[in-house]
Amino acid sequence: MEEIKLGMVGLGTVGSGVLEMVQKHAAKISAVTGRKLALKTVVVRNLAKHAAVAQQVHLTTDLNEILTDPEIQIVVEVMGGIHPAKEVITQLLTAHKHVVTANKDLIATEGAKLIELARANHCDLLYEASVAGGIPILRTIADSFAADQITEVKGIVNGTTNYILTQMAQQHWSYEQALQKAQELGFAEADPTNDVKGKDAAYKMVILSQFSFGTRVPVAAVATEGIDQVAAQDVAQAAAFGYTIKLVGVARLAGDGLFVEVAPALVNRHHPLAEVNNENNAVMVRGQAVGDTLFYGPGAGGLPTANSVLSDITTVMKNMILKTNGNSFNRYSKQLALAESAAVKDRYYLALTLPDQPGEMQKLTTEMAKLNASFSQIVQQAGQNGQARVMIITHEMSKAQLAQLQAALAALKTATLHCAYRVIE
Amino acid sequence: MEEIKLGMVGLGTVGSGVLEMVQKHAAKISAVTGRKLALKTVVVRNLAKHAAVAQQVHLTTDLNEILTDPEIQIVVEVMGGIHPAKEVITQLLTAHKHVVTANKDLIATEGAKLIELARANHCDLLYEASVAGGIPILRTIADSFAADQITEVKGIVNGTTNYILTQMAQQHWSYEQALQKAQELGFAEADPTNDVKGKDAAYKMVILSQFSFGTRVPVAAVATEGIDQVAAQDVAQAAAFGYTIKLVGVARLAGDGLFVEVAPALVNRHHPLAEVNNENNAVMVRGQAVGDTLFYGPGAGGLPTANSVLSDITTVMKNMILKTNGNSFNRYSKQLALAESAAVKDRYYLALTLPDQPGEMQKLTTEMAKLNASFSQIVQQAGQNGQARVMIITHEMSKAQLAQLQAALAALKTATLHCAYRVIE
Repeated sequence: MEEIKLGMVGLGTVGSGVLEMVQKHAAKISAVTGRKLALKTVVVRNLAKHAAVAQQVHLTTDLNEILTDPEIQIVVEVMGGIHPAKEVITQLLTAHKHVVTANKDLIATEGAKLIELARANHCDLLYEASVAGGIPILRTIADSFAADQITEVKGIVNGTTNYILTQMAQQHWSYEQALQKAQELGFAEADPTNDVKGKDAAYKMVILSQFSFGTRVPVAAVATEGIDQVAAQDVAQAAAFGYTIKLVGVARLAGDGLFVEVAPALVNRHHPLAEVNNENNAVMVRGQAVGDTLFYGPGAGGLPTANSVLSDITTVMKNMILKTNGNSFNRYSKQLALAESAAVKDRYYLALTLPDQPGEMQKLTTEMAKLNASFSQIVQQAGQNGQARVMIITHEMSKAQLAQLQAALAALKTATLHCAYRVIE
Repeated sequence: MEEIKLGMVGLGTVGSGVLEMVQKHAAKISAVTGRKLALKTVVVRNLAKHAAVAQQVHLTTDLNEILTDPEIQIVVEVMGGIHPAKEVITQLLTAHKHVVTANKDLIATEGAKLIELARANHCDLLYEASVAGGIPILRTIADSFAADQITEVKGIVNGTTNYILTQMAQQHWSYEQALQKAQELGFAEADPTNDVKGKDAAYKMVILSQFSFGTRVPVAAVATEGIDQVAAQDVAQAAAFGYTIKLVGVARLAGDGLFVEVAPALVNRHHPLAEVNNENNAVMVRGQAVGDTLFYGPGAGGLPTANSVLSDITTVMKNMILKTNGNSFNRYSKQLALAESAAVKDRYYLALTLPDQPGEMQKLTTEMAKLNASFSQIVQQAGQNGQARVMIITHEMSKAQLAQLQAALAALKTATLHCAYRVIE
């Protein structure tokens, strides 16, 4: 049986998973593709650190060993980060290697240039593993929603923050306590900024938007709010109202435009996303024809993510056999403008403190009435220092109305708005 | 832009959905495939019945209008049933037409011959819509699990029975009441036999087994139990134990073999399948590398199923452009034997009636002890005519042990076993 040789750059959690799968699942891969797959060369930074696997695969610190090896036709990039991953992939594509990557940061920010470079070199550039780890969401959107008009894609696309929010809800911990536990267990990095600030999820929403709507949204245009300001008392109040707080990425047609956001949201406890706990991810795709579909699975981890890498590798192998390499992973393009804030309508959970005095609540309700905004649930709790804490679930209002309300509350000076979280029924 | 012309045989719910999608989503289809798609000719049995759409598309009762039309390259078969669908598809493939079908009965029973015929004629034969309506599960297993070893695939793959069981659980209705309501609302056929006896789900498990394990299982080899014997009191007792009764199809590696079954099962209320209600479907795929993934969506309905048909059509269009037609939808083949019953282990829910007399319960526990089977939960209720009703959840036992227990209880003569349902935690 003909052998196809693979190279890899990086040998961390995902890279080790790829090595393990190529070895353990060799029979299945051969049965499906009709070719043997062998991992020939892995580029690492530190040879000594990986001495244990040096028996199984050739390790080197020199990328040229892959670039100049005509036997290696497919290369996996799992080093992560934007530099030097961008330069590495650029060199690989220029050397006519097909590239499979799990690098969401890079694809979200520099994807357009790399996709064009791949096309110019008749190479495949696939990146299923860049979104939602083990969930095959990109290929599914590209292939199985090709004829449907997606109107919304939303989901829990970051495992670290979902783990932290799950622990806050289940253990009644503060954000700081839950983060510390997540770091101890390896679910959060020592520097968790990219995860907890929502940046990682924003990268993924950029890629999901491109597949779902054909629209390139710059990362900077994704309204992004992390979970580091989520208060234990709002988690508790959300539960009392019948909701769970999740970090939800959403990309949605609104008016003539596209609205993309990453922010904490209250998810109704009967909504399928409410049951997605710990490090798991789920993406809900709403199609005009198909209605609501949900794709659930592990959002991170070496082997789950490696499975997505391997699904890309077997796709490249199939393309090599059929001589159909060089076609874009996502074939849908339709550049939409960003949605007007008046067209983006949701219900919101608002938490405020007000002086615990007669007339203060009336000021709040007056401001809301002026904006034609109303609420469906309200709870007031005695707070400290003569302050009352008021928690509200509003009826549907637009982003524009919300901004006006925020400005009006700021002008009142006496009221402090702690959070405004979207409500998902 | 080049136009690709489509034919269709059948114009029921799914066929009407296909017609609607081809018209409404023409722009998206063109954007993704680079070709215009037009539905040229539809074969129906009764022209008068479809007079309303005769303005939009050419209707005929004569299949030859498609067979002999060189312009029509792709044909959708949505007439359903085995005959004459088999003869129609045979003629279409022989005439070198690519075929897309939603026909699970036919693919499950005659798929092998038709797939071979398609291959011999260099034609595509795709059938994503045959399993789980709008959920793109077959293509996902074929493409995204190509390198993983699937160890179990299980799910709720029949919308009618799930609607009935959901109503039984939520409204506390009997099976007969829930069936009648389902028929009134159009969720169940006038003759619901194929659905309620589990046959339809068995067809789908045959197709899922082929994609997941590469193994062809004859429909007759799928142990199949329907929902028509599910008693309201077992639905209630399951709820009291913390479970929901669902009709679950399972295909699982067990020992050296493959175990495939369709039967009512108790699903733990925290399991993702427990939240799949009404006519929705969900399929859970367990991979050695990826772990548990779940794919959820509408299991039936014209437009959702049409979306799966259209995803197949766009795949055929892509293959036509790349000149790669004629490759099998499922490329994995590994014929496994059926599992030995001693290797298939589960926990069970048992409901029995016993004479309400001293010593009877001891006889039951003695039989279980002889088989080295034990239970984790037990409830006894006073019944009628001096009979007690006993409901048990066992610890894990094999299918072989369960058969021995059933034989022993039958030999006792005083005990009647009403049901033995698998328990899914």
